[in-house]
Amino acid sequence: MAQRDTKREILISSVIIILAFMILSLPTPAAAQEKPQDKPYLDIVGRLSALGLQDEGAYEILRKLTSVGPRLTGSPGAAAGVELMRQVMQDLGFDNVHIEPVTVNRWVRGGTEKARIIGSTIVGNIPLMICALGGSIGTPELGVTAPMVEVRSFQELRALGEGVRNRIVFFNRPMDRKLIQTFGAYGSAADQRVRGASEAAKLGALAVLVRSLTLRIDDFPHTGLLEYDPAAPKIPAAAVSTAGAEFLSALLRKEPDVRVQLELSCKNLAPVPSANVVGEIRGSERPDEIILVGGHLDSWDLAVGAHDDGAGCANAVEALRLIKTAGLKPRRTIRAVMFMDEEFGGTGGRFYAMDERRKGEKHLAAIELDSGGFLPIAVGGGKPEVFEKLKKWEYVFKPLGITMMRPGGGGVDVAPLAAQGTALLGISPDSQRYFDVHHSGLDILESVHPRELELGAISLAIYAYILAQEGI
Amino acid sequence: MAQRDTKREILISSVIIILAFMILSLPTPAAAQEKPQDKPYLDIVGRLSALGLQDEGAYEILRKLTSVGPRLTGSPGAAAGVELMRQVMQDLGFDNVHIEPVTVNRWVRGGTEKARIIGSTIVGNIPLMICALGGSIGTPELGVTAPMVEVRSFQELRALGEGVRNRIVFFNRPMDRKLIQTFGAYGSAADQRVRGASEAAKLGALAVLVRSLTLRIDDFPHTGLLEYDPAAPKIPAAAVSTAGAEFLSALLRKEPDVRVQLELSCKNLAPVPSANVVGEIRGSERPDEIILVGGHLDSWDLAVGAHDDGAGCANAVEALRLIKTAGLKPRRTIRAVMFMDEEFGGTGGRFYAMDERRKGEKHLAAIELDSGGFLPIAVGGGKPEVFEKLKKWEYVFKPLGITMMRPGGGGVDVAPLAAQGTALLGISPDSQRYFDVHHSGLDILESVHPRELELGAISLAIYAYILAQEGI
Repeated sequence: MAQRDTKREILISSVIIILAFMILSLPTPAAAQEKPQDKPYLDIVGRLSALGLQDEGAYEILRKLTSVGPRLTGSPGAAAGVELMRQVMQDLGFDNVHIEPVTVNRWVRGGTEKARIIGSTIVGNIPLMICALGGSIGTPELGVTAPMVEVRSFQELRALGEGVRNRIVFFNRPMDRKLIQTFGAYGSAADQRVRGASEAAKLGALAVLVRSLTLRIDDFPHTGLLEYDPAAPKIPAAAVSTAGAEFLSALLRKEPDVRVQLELSCKNLAPVPSANVVGEIRGSERPDEIILVGGHLDSWDLAVGAHDDGAGCANAVEALRLIKTAGLKPRRTIRAVMFMDEEFGGTGGRFYAMDERRKGEKHLAAIELDSGGFLPIAVGGGKPEVFEKLKKWEYVFKPLGITMMRPGGGGVDVAPLAAQGTALLGISPDSQRYFDVHHSGLDILESVHPRELELGAISLAIYAYILAQEGI
Repeated sequence: MAQRDTKREILISSVIIILAFMILSLPTPAAAQEKPQDKPYLDIVGRLSALGLQDEGAYEILRKLTSVGPRLTGSPGAAAGVELMRQVMQDLGFDNVHIEPVTVNRWVRGGTEKARIIGSTIVGNIPLMICALGGSIGTPELGVTAPMVEVRSFQELRALGEGVRNRIVFFNRPMDRKLIQTFGAYGSAADQRVRGASEAAKLGALAVLVRSLTLRIDDFPHTGLLEYDPAAPKIPAAAVSTAGAEFLSALLRKEPDVRVQLELSCKNLAPVPSANVVGEIRGSERPDEIILVGGHLDSWDLAVGAHDDGAGCANAVEALRLIKTAGLKPRRTIRAVMFMDEEFGGTGGRFYAMDERRKGEKHLAAIELDSGGFLPIAVGGGKPEVFEKLKKWEYVFKPLGITMMRPGGGGVDVAPLAAQGTALLGISPDSQRYFDVHHSGLDILESVHPRELELGAISLAIYAYILAQEGI
């Protein structure tokens, strides 16, 4: 009997589990009560999401794209990425598949980048995990060896004045982990990477080491672009892993006189030809009115840029594939653009906007995905006056689990279109994990989840299709 | 000059990046316009979230909990988990920290579980990746060797009638990947695991192999409880990895007569004593009115149960830690309960509800977290009439990125409290990745993200604190 009772209890528990799941999976009562005719696009949402989740096509496109390796602007990998994505769109039967030439900057990391601590009686001469910042000049062949000075802000740097001369400045302000939005946390520390070298050079520093922009404490350095101020001497700049930064900071408190030897062989070369890649589903009624979806094809060189921004490219192509496979015929043209050179200055976006092919085209809206291939959680509706017109489409995103619609959107590559009156919209993924991998050796295919990525593509397909049908 | 222009362009690009990030990070205009006095808890939301994200305390608690290893109901690991969590809460200075005895089922996997294909001329005798289902009987020592019959539903099974006798039934219906909510996909296939063995046994089958309940195709088998129907003979049951299931299915199409040899040494033992673990922040005004937050302490034995349900336990304790550390004094008692034996029938929850310590206590609300430690995306407000009273608190969750509030909630362990009138509420995390690891060897600490987990704890702390202050 005891045995029978136990089994009954197990059975009851199972029923409770399933009921609890079902209750939590229910749509809100309001949604359940609304009539289908009030929500004409719900059927299409269902079709596109079923198709996408069944196929996980975005991940397959991303797998192909990342198979060419890193795609640093101007590199052979980037050229291979251009050809591959052109071929992928050709094979998918998109309309008007072509490339558009762009001239891009060319920087190479070179074979040597290392840093080591010198003169510590505690730890000896041990290495630090570093990588050159994008655009940095190299060091002399024997490297730069100098004592360190640690600062957390430009204010602190300037207060040191002559104390900076002939030293390597160590910028060690962490991203503000208390912020829920990690892009805000990134913004709280990125100035060190972007402007640190020149700010330090103005005071006579020989080089800079910058704490990597990530919220994790680990051994992976994160690169990213620096900007040299023309008014300052150019000095070499590298990112140090957060674990290395924590270690170095602790060591400097005990042994302020230790030196660091930094060797970088990176250099800037002459600009080279490259390309944006374009494909579309031509509009059946207003083909010259364009809804642009896109990402940037170039990546950093430390990994294959699966999130940054392979995800944006894969989702743009997958969005068109979903629309085409579902047999939808958009009234306006939906165009996928994979921009070149976002990371080194956004030349692809500027070339695109001013290319003579744009004559006679009107870009109604542009949605660039460049925040990682994570779960989409919010939809951006552009400027407040545009948002007012778009917020009636909130209902199409709810079944996808996106319950936040707000003004905002944009991206480096689509920003130049704003001058033509194009509405810059957006789809924002969850940001919690992005900076774990951003610009580092961890930005690999395996860090992307097929379903999270696909939900981005599905959301993009639906947004683009509605805009193509309804305009703004 | 060209060089100067390029640099200026880079600078402009950087400004655009940062502006785009900031726009996307802004709260909605409505939120920005509301006055602080309309939203008295916003200050506390800010304090708790800053504290939690700075400390990542939930991950630290989870690290400790998972360090004891798997915590299968009735096992030494579960006993170690009980003692550890009692100690953790004691060390945190919680009130009324104690354990409450529970008698639980005891099942052991034993040293042998393997399956191999026999008699294939194509692949030879090769192994399949399997694991016994929880509660399964073992096979005879030499195993069960029999031809296979593959089905996708009980209907299909019954249609085979005598064709099932003396065979091993292979249940191979995949989870429905087209569903956005993966709990729905789980529900679409879980019957095979729960009732497959007895349904097959009624028709004379010797054993069952069940496709693992995951949306990924990989080599990891996923276990979980089965239920033997007292009206059917008990036969052994194992889960096969999805890659194995795909392979076996393809092989059976070519060689329908291949056999599988299944060896399992698992067995059910006599019930053993175990315990729930309880700690609280005693209410300053109405200490006998209780807001319960909890998870289940037992896990499966294939890994440390970091998501299922270490995450729920860690978040319950962290929620109390945040409230206490912030110096908040709740009017009603906020109690963390770590239940034992959710996976093998929910005895901990039933013992808790009927324990004599419950006399004189009134449980206003219970929130069990048992869906993984992923990004929280929705808050559950119980039955519709309870939800009506709670939805005014929607505003406290928005700053945490949770924009969905809906009826629903519950959990195996808190369900028995419903009879006392307790409102069963919930906080739902993103479900996309949960079944990748659920009940498998992949449910390890490294599959949990510290910030995602912490956002669950912060949401729970805020929900519990408001309920403790305001009642329902």
